[in-house]
Amino acid sequence: MIDKLIGKIRETGAPIVVGLDPTMKFVPGYIQQEAYREAGETLEGAAEAIWRYNKGIIDAVWDLISAVKPQIAMYEQFGIPGLRVFQKTVEYCKEKGLVVIGDVKRGDIGSTSEAYAVAHLGKVKVGDKTYSPFGEDFATVNPYLGSDGVRPFLKVCQEEKKGIFVLVKTSNPSSGELQDRLTDGKPVYEVVGEQVAAWGEECMGTGGYSRVGAVVGATYPEQGKLLRRIMPKTFILVPGYGAQGGRGSDLVHFFNEDGLGAIINSSRGIIAAYQQEQYSQYGERGYADAARAAVIAMREDISQALS
Amino acid sequence: MIDKLIGKIRETGAPIVVGLDPTMKFVPGYIQQEAYREAGETLEGAAEAIWRYNKGIIDAVWDLISAVKPQIAMYEQFGIPGLRVFQKTVEYCKEKGLVVIGDVKRGDIGSTSEAYAVAHLGKVKVGDKTYSPFGEDFATVNPYLGSDGVRPFLKVCQEEKKGIFVLVKTSNPSSGELQDRLTDGKPVYEVVGEQVAAWGEECMGTGGYSRVGAVVGATYPEQGKLLRRIMPKTFILVPGYGAQGGRGSDLVHFFNEDGLGAIINSSRGIIAAYQQEQYSQYGERGYADAARAAVIAMREDISQALS
Repeated sequence: MIDKLIGKIRETGAPIVVGLDPTMKFVPGYIQQEAYREAGETLEGAAEAIWRYNKGIIDAVWDLISAVKPQIAMYEQFGIPGLRVFQKTVEYCKEKGLVVIGDVKRGDIGSTSEAYAVAHLGKVKVGDKTYSPFGEDFATVNPYLGSDGVRPFLKVCQEEKKGIFVLVKTSNPSSGELQDRLTDGKPVYEVVGEQVAAWGEECMGTGGYSRVGAVVGATYPEQGKLLRRIMPKTFILVPGYGAQGGRGSDLVHFFNEDGLGAIINSSRGIIAAYQQEQYSQYGERGYADAARAAVIAMREDISQALS
Repeated sequence: MIDKLIGKIRETGAPIVVGLDPTMKFVPGYIQQEAYREAGETLEGAAEAIWRYNKGIIDAVWDLISAVKPQIAMYEQFGIPGLRVFQKTVEYCKEKGLVVIGDVKRGDIGSTSEAYAVAHLGKVKVGDKTYSPFGEDFATVNPYLGSDGVRPFLKVCQEEKKGIFVLVKTSNPSSGELQDRLTDGKPVYEVVGEQVAAWGEECMGTGGYSRVGAVVGATYPEQGKLLRRIMPKTFILVPGYGAQGGRGSDLVHFFNEDGLGAIINSSRGIIAAYQQEQYSQYGERGYADAARAAVIAMREDISQALS
C-alpha cells in the first residue's frame, strides 16, 4: 500500500491527504436539515448528514489528491450510526481509488493491539469465513506502550501489504510536554523516530520506502528536519498544515531529495474552506467546489515550496 | 462516578474489575455454534456469540465485583456488529449496578479528544436533542499527546461526574522502552504520574479521590509503590494480575492506608477460568460458574495480601 501511495503521489503530483474530520459545525445547514427531515434529530440523522457532506467533498476532490484520512473520533461521537458512516466513507474512497488512512491512533498491549490491527487493516476469522471489519489501507498508531503494542500491526502490515503511521511528534501545542523531554541527551520524539526507522527495516515496500510511517506535525519544521534525516526510508504524514498554522515553506524539510517521503494533511482548511473569508463566494451550497479550490491552492503552495 | 466506585468497593469488599475482553478462543464452542446457527458465520454471528458469553459471565459475577472493563478492541475487531455488542454490554452492566470502565485508550489533539470524550463519557447534540453514544462511566486515556489531549476529557468528567484512567506505567513487557526512560533524573512514568496528580486536583470527587485515575500494571510493583506515593488522591487501575503474572502480594503497594485507592483488573484469569487446570472440573458449559469461583479466589487473594 506504501507503493500505491507513492504511485498516487506521482500520478496526481499532489502529496496531499484530505482529512475527513466532519464536525457538525462544518456541515452546511441545508444538509443537516435534509438529513434530519428524513431520519430525525437522531444519531442516524447526524450520521446521514455527515455522509452526504463527505460524499460531496470526495466527489469534488478525489481526482486531485492521493489519500484521505478520516478521523474516527468524529464518527465515534455519533455512536454506531456514526461508525457505520466511517466504514461507508472508507469504502467509497477506496472505490474512487484513493488511499485511505484511518486516523484511529490505536495502541495497546500485544494481544489487544492485534485485535485493533485486525479491525482496521486485517481480516477476522469467523468459523470458516473471513471478513475485513473496517478495511483501511493505513492506520495511525500510538507508541506509548512500546514495541509489543506496535509489532502486531507490523505483522498485519506484512500479511496484507498495508501500513501504519506511528505518532512521533504530534502537531498540537502541548505535544512537547512528553515528546520533547530529553532522555540520554535526545528528545523522546527522536527515540521514537529511531524505533520507527528500525521497525520499518523489517517492513519494506518495493519502492524504497517502508510500510511503517511516522506522524510529524507541520507546526514543528525543525523537528521535521531532524526526523527526516534519522528516518530516511520512512514516509512522514504531516498534519497541522493550514488551519493549525503550518505553512508551505515549513514543509520542504519533511521531503526527501526524490520529492517523496512526505504526505501533507489538511482537514478543515479543505473541508470547511467555504467558511473562510477567502472562499466565501462559494457559499454553503458551494462547499464542495470551495474544497476543490482549496485543494488546488494547497497543491500550488506545496509545489512552490518544493521547487 | 469515582464516589460510586468507592461505594461499590465498600459494599462488595472487592476492589475487583473484571475485564470483559472476549477473544473468540475463550468463547465456549457450543455458544459459538448456537450463534452461528442463528446468525450465520458472519460478523453478526460472532458478535452474538460474544454477547451470550458476556451475559453469562456478568450474570454469574455481578454481585461480587465493583466494576467491569470491556476492552473495545475485542469488539472493534468484529466491526459494527461487534461495537453494537460493546454498547449492549456497557448498558447491561450499568443495569446491574456495575461501574463500567471503557478500556478504549483514546487520546488525540484537543478537538479530536473532545469528540472521543463525548463518544465515551459525554453527550452529543443533534439539532435540539442530545444522546449518550456509548455511555461508559470511565474511559482509559493515552497521555502521549500531552495536556491538550487530556483536558477535553477533564471537562466532560466535570460536567458528567465521570472519570478517566490515564496510562502511566502499562503492564506489558515492553512498556519500559518509552515509559522507563529517564528524563531530568526521573522516568517518564513518574513525569506522567505527576501530571495525573495535578489534573486530579482540578477534578476532585467528594470522597477524597479525584476523577483522574492512573493505569499502573501489577507486573511493576516497585513502580506502583513510587506512583502510589506521588499520586495520593489518585485511584490506580491495576491490570496484569493473574494471567500476565502479577500476584496478590504484589498488589499491596498500590493501595492507600485507607484500604482504597486501587482497583485490580483480571480478564482472562476470570472470563476464561474454565480453560485453566484449576477450574477444569467446570467444563465449558460451566464457564460462568468457573468465572464466579475465580472471582471468589481472587477476592481472597487480595484480602489476604491487604490484611
